[in-house]
Amino acid sequence: MEKNIAVIKGDGIGPEIVNEAIKVLDAIAKKYNHTFNYKNILMGGCSIDAYGVPLTDEALEVAKNSDAVLLGSIGGDTNTSPWYKLDPTLRPEAGLLKIRKELGLFANLRPAYLYKELAGACPLKESISEAGFDMIIVRELTGGLYFGERNTKEINGELVAHDNLVYSEHEIRRIAQRGFEIAMKRGKKLTSVDKANVLDTSRLWRKIVNEVAQDFPKVKVEHMLVDNCAMQLVKDPAQFDVVLTENMFGDILSDEASMVTGSIGMLSSASLREDSLGMYEPSHGSAPDIAGQNIANPLATILSAAMMLRYSFDMDEEAACIEKAVEKVLADNIRTVDIYKEGMTKVSTSQMGDAVVERL
Amino acid sequence: MEKNIAVIKGDGIGPEIVNEAIKVLDAIAKKYNHTFNYKNILMGGCSIDAYGVPLTDEALEVAKNSDAVLLGSIGGDTNTSPWYKLDPTLRPEAGLLKIRKELGLFANLRPAYLYKELAGACPLKESISEAGFDMIIVRELTGGLYFGERNTKEINGELVAHDNLVYSEHEIRRIAQRGFEIAMKRGKKLTSVDKANVLDTSRLWRKIVNEVAQDFPKVKVEHMLVDNCAMQLVKDPAQFDVVLTENMFGDILSDEASMVTGSIGMLSSASLREDSLGMYEPSHGSAPDIAGQNIANPLATILSAAMMLRYSFDMDEEAACIEKAVEKVLADNIRTVDIYKEGMTKVSTSQMGDAVVERL
Ligand SMILES: CC(C)[C@H](C(=O)O)[C@@H](O)C(=O)O
Ligand SMILES: CC(C)[C@H](C(=O)O)[C@@H](O)C(=O)O
Repeated sequence: MEKNIAVIKGDGIGPEIVNEAIKVLDAIAKKYNHTFNYKNILMGGCSIDAYGVPLTDEALEVAKNSDAVLLGSIGGDTNTSPWYKLDPTLRPEAGLLKIRKELGLFANLRPAYLYKELAGACPLKESISEAGFDMIIVRELTGGLYFGERNTKEINGELVAHDNLVYSEHEIRRIAQRGFEIAMKRGKKLTSVDKANVLDTSRLWRKIVNEVAQDFPKVKVEHMLVDNCAMQLVKDPAQFDVVLTENMFGDILSDEASMVTGSIGMLSSASLREDSLGMYEPSHGSAPDIAGQNIANPLATILSAAMMLRYSFDMDEEAACIEKAVEKVLADNIRTVDIYKEGMTKVSTSQMGDAVVERL
Repeated sequence: MEKNIAVIKGDGIGPEIVNEAIKVLDAIAKKYNHTFNYKNILMGGCSIDAYGVPLTDEALEVAKNSDAVLLGSIGGDTNTSPWYKLDPTLRPEAGLLKIRKELGLFANLRPAYLYKELAGACPLKESISEAGFDMIIVRELTGGLYFGERNTKEINGELVAHDNLVYSEHEIRRIAQRGFEIAMKRGKKLTSVDKANVLDTSRLWRKIVNEVAQDFPKVKVEHMLVDNCAMQLVKDPAQFDVVLTENMFGDILSDEASMVTGSIGMLSSASLREDSLGMYEPSHGSAPDIAGQNIANPLATILSAAMMLRYSFDMDEEAACIEKAVEKVLADNIRTVDIYKEGMTKVSTSQMGDAVVERL
């Protein structure tokens, strides 16, 4: 097969880690006789530096016309980078929000998984982590507080800021359906998270989730308040299979869940819409402090490329091939510095990419 | 001194735990020659059952005219209790939101503290928890998503729900001031949490916090994004001293922080305004599953009564007397079932109250 991939290397460690993912994709193309065409586009700080905006319409067009988007990471140090002196609509993150919205990527899947080989990095006690955990956060990505109208006005001599949290039935229905479909392929348990004791949007969320649940009688559904969920993720993360939630809660809870695994350098994510186009990126950030040193861990990005093969190109075997190679690398005690422990083999970013390719 | 205390026993375990706090307050009154007058008022489910509303105007009037409010807990099982079939404005939690707003209790202080004696209950690894932690979440309590306009309308044949997130300068300024004042009395470090890369309210929040910071040059200020904070609370909670944040983020993060301590049965909270009136309650919920069994842990409520003495009545010595008695109880290995470990003395709710009184 021939596929067109829009590549956004981005800022910080983005270029280094994306290069390793492409190395792996090229090896897969060779092994399985595919052709992957890459088109580099700019987004985030590098686009601001080049064009004054975090995402140009031309770059967006390339993404729209591709079969999938592979993203490294964007943004810099918010305290020191000049990008954060710009108007909010011109900062790096505005590019990310724009591409999500313009491509209609409403379903953000964030697996949070405890790698056996990295269990030592889990911040929880063994009595909790030994149950293992393997959940996926299904986060609504194009609605809610992120995309409602906002403004800051002077009223009676003082500034007043507004952000609007809006959800309509169809937005909730489509992400709920996605959540239940995923639950059917996994442990058949879905925890829908909201703040229904306070918010109208949450009460609508709960109503629609219950309606969609009718079509999936095999899935066990529970509703959990967001404050309770933030506690349960620490107390007993093994209880979760699929966690379905709205945009802002999903931002907070998915980061908490990924930290709870201790495997944050390993976690990939996919942002999808109804058809096969998707955007794939590591869960971690752009780590400007270690950029350009060839020490960043590329595994989350490599695993994001595997997700791309599975979800956008329907290449299940190829995806599994990458995932197994990553497992072998870990089993062989090959580690970048962030996951290194005494007695193991410490490798650079590019050596890690090579190590995965060797094991494909 | 003579003080009038409005007492809201509430639902679930509320009455049992409040009774023990009153037992302790009475012993303090005797010891220090004070008079505490209690007026019981209904709020939550029990008020719904009696009057059809979660808080009557008469009850609110009693609270307004008191020197402080002592609260147990309200609400029931949201899946099974008939209270949750009512219109949202008539459910138990609506009473809580109403009393917060009507009394103007804008500053919610939630200490999250690792009790040495209970370190075993901390879900984090010893390598993290051994640093100890002792932070206080200062949560804005009468603004934001909780009190903005909300509605659910039919638009183009589907339901659309709105919740409005609003903050004005003066609301941010007064809670920031409170946060900095508390930081000055503690470790002189303040972490302000927002989502300034997305929300207008967060950008205004950050601006005003920076302005207020000018008046407290000795306090080290940092700004942290809410998703990052949710991670840091698990990764390295010892880094926090005062965490200042808005209403919804504070709800989520304070619950996460209290679970991270493992001492959730011990954590008290205060909701304050500019003058001395405040409302004091345990951080945990109404636990309907164990209500009426005389097994609930009353210590968080007893410690909330101590906070009341300190913040509303300026009785520092009396407050410290209670806190020390609670520490002695723990040192003497006296435990309710939730914190019980083999070899210790297991006691009931009322025996725990007696044990504290004996040690005053
Ligand atoms: C960079 C930021 C706008 C973004 C978000 O909040 O969605 C990030 O935190 C994420 O989770 O992908
Ligand atoms: C009961 C609920 C409305 C309340 C809140 O969200 O504020 C509770 O969770 C709390 O934190 O006091």
